[in-house]
Amino acid sequence: MTNTPADTIINVLDQVIQSADKPAHLHEPRFNGNEWQYVKECLDTGWVSSVGSYVNLFEEKLAEKCGVSHAILTVNGTAALHTALILMGVKSGDEVIIPTLTFIATANAVTYCGATPHFVDSDAHTLGIDAVKLDNYLAQNTMQSNGNLINKNTGKRIAAIVPVHIFGHACNMVTLSTVANKYNLPIISDAAEALGSFYHNKPLASYGDISAVSFNGNKVITTGGGGAILTNDDKIAAHAKHITTTAKVPHKWDFVHDEIGYNYRMPNLNAALGCAQLEQLDTFVESKRRLAERYIEKFSENDAVRFIQEPEGCRSNYWLCAIQIHDANKRNETLQSLHDNGYICRPIWKLMHTLPMFQNCPRMDLAIAGQLEQTIINLPSSVKLGLTQ
Amino acid sequence: MTNTPADTIINVLDQVIQSADKPAHLHEPRFNGNEWQYVKECLDTGWVSSVGSYVNLFEEKLAEKCGVSHAILTVNGTAALHTALILMGVKSGDEVIIPTLTFIATANAVTYCGATPHFVDSDAHTLGIDAVKLDNYLAQNTMQSNGNLINKNTGKRIAAIVPVHIFGHACNMVTLSTVANKYNLPIISDAAEALGSFYHNKPLASYGDISAVSFNGNKVITTGGGGAILTNDDKIAAHAKHITTTAKVPHKWDFVHDEIGYNYRMPNLNAALGCAQLEQLDTFVESKRRLAERYIEKFSENDAVRFIQEPEGCRSNYWLCAIQIHDANKRNETLQSLHDNGYICRPIWKLMHTLPMFQNCPRMDLAIAGQLEQTIINLPSSVKLGLTQ
Repeated sequence: MTNTPADTIINVLDQVIQSADKPAHLHEPRFNGNEWQYVKECLDTGWVSSVGSYVNLFEEKLAEKCGVSHAILTVNGTAALHTALILMGVKSGDEVIIPTLTFIATANAVTYCGATPHFVDSDAHTLGIDAVKLDNYLAQNTMQSNGNLINKNTGKRIAAIVPVHIFGHACNMVTLSTVANKYNLPIISDAAEALGSFYHNKPLASYGDISAVSFNGNKVITTGGGGAILTNDDKIAAHAKHITTTAKVPHKWDFVHDEIGYNYRMPNLNAALGCAQLEQLDTFVESKRRLAERYIEKFSENDAVRFIQEPEGCRSNYWLCAIQIHDANKRNETLQSLHDNGYICRPIWKLMHTLPMFQNCPRMDLAIAGQLEQTIINLPSSVKLGLTQ
Repeated sequence: MTNTPADTIINVLDQVIQSADKPAHLHEPRFNGNEWQYVKECLDTGWVSSVGSYVNLFEEKLAEKCGVSHAILTVNGTAALHTALILMGVKSGDEVIIPTLTFIATANAVTYCGATPHFVDSDAHTLGIDAVKLDNYLAQNTMQSNGNLINKNTGKRIAAIVPVHIFGHACNMVTLSTVANKYNLPIISDAAEALGSFYHNKPLASYGDISAVSFNGNKVITTGGGGAILTNDDKIAAHAKHITTTAKVPHKWDFVHDEIGYNYRMPNLNAALGCAQLEQLDTFVESKRRLAERYIEKFSENDAVRFIQEPEGCRSNYWLCAIQIHDANKRNETLQSLHDNGYICRPIWKLMHTLPMFQNCPRMDLAIAGQLEQTIINLPSSVKLGLTQ
């Protein structure tokens, strides 16, 4: 009898995950620190909204943790990314280079600027943008004009590159930075999944000209919903704070707003939760890495399944553990078997360029992303599953 | 010695507000109900984000309270208004009629659709859109073409009217509805400030083809940050839920998104706070109306100051109590005196058409709004100030 991929995976999951933890969801939050103390203080003082000290405290601690000068909290990761795109000069009519293999927020945020996503392929190893393929593609399909990079096929300006650190694994930022410099494009790093990851011994979220992180309920740490913009530039940081808080000019009573702004601030209540969660980030990541090690050990015993490991130079948070199966035709039946056995696993996202609203966007050959999309499955990755027992 | 407006106002405030409540801010939240219990339950169960029962419960109770079939929670009032505009068919290149006398969110939300605010004047009595003046203006400046209302001066389509119920006081919705019908324009009601107000014995927030409310920290009830879309239309409600939650098509594992969507959902943590606050809405409004009655009584003793009372047919929540002084030149010195005496009062908002990003937008004569802007001052209006002592 031949083992199916489902048999192999379920066999490993049964060894790694306690039956008491089933059904095992993909990623559950954990509140084991000062969450209640801080949240209760918000309620007791009445400071739940725009007034209160947790926003400032969380911004300060987050910047420190991420090795950047400034963190500006936002209402969610999508808002952070939208704001980062604006701050890097993305305008209506521009194109923005993003991987087709990403969560929908990356593509949506580009459209909020009135810009168009320009989809590029992924690297099978890192799951992120293939920087070498991108370089060759840009060389053939773009030209410089008045200091702008123009897509020769559409005539539109290409305004930025948005690498996404899929599941917490770093893109090849060394090569990508070289490419970005060559074409004079800013890098807006979608680090929604990357908090707690390191790249060449520096926090991964600190890479890029600006970056955006997420504290959604399924992320390593959560604020219910939330995100942040990270930058080392004082002026950009001030501008980020300004436009995420309706672009109101400070005055003791007057309401002067000096540009189009957004209501993207994070409420103090959610920031209080974030402060407590951030205190536990390191132990959460340790636990998640321990879980990944257990998966790696067990999956190494057979070659029917590739467990996706951190790329060279990256110390990953293993936000979501993931495997790749060989036979794309078996993906859906595998997922069904996993669900039936109490493992609430997921495929990776549908490729952006296949969704109806993005089908006509510019794109390169996307063969590797296509293979990855058909064969990747995420495994249960909650912090609690990696605790020392 | 002649009394200045400041003398008159401070004299009244000293009678109405206990010195223990100074400095008296404009509007402070109050958490005296089940806030702790509900929020703690979120932390204990781990349901702080998109999973959890408080979002559904708050939507159900809010719809009931507002007398509509559906309430769809959003991350804030601006997000609710933006979504409502999309749902009512506002497109890039359109114009949307809004009062110039409003908070910045009304105008910003229009721009998020790629549309342009078209500013109209206010009624001195209701502070809302002057429907009769609007009717005359539209008669002279627009024409029908292929079922669309076209601004003859710009050639652009006028897509909707957005009345704003300033400080909780109802616009003249009877006349405005007649005008909207005449020109075949949908009414998107900006009811951010109107929760708990009634108009002709029905909840004010239920008026219009769709409406948006806010639970910002300074509103009658708060979720830290939050808002909601209200509608009686089943299809629009379903669409609202869809596009505020990234337009993901339900599936047990697949990620299909079928249109441009937004990350506008309210986290369960904030919805928990909202459930507790909504239980207290009626008593909060009673308290605020009691405070308004005290102000009315005291201000009636002199004619240097007009206290802005609820318009005919409206039972207002008196979200922010407001007065109008006669001499616009004395506004700033009056505000300074109030601040110096521990009353943290504010003027009304700067008129939208005077802000740099909206100076070139189409507009009618705005004389009444100009007078109101120069002479209105908001008074401390917190729930606690109206409690029975």
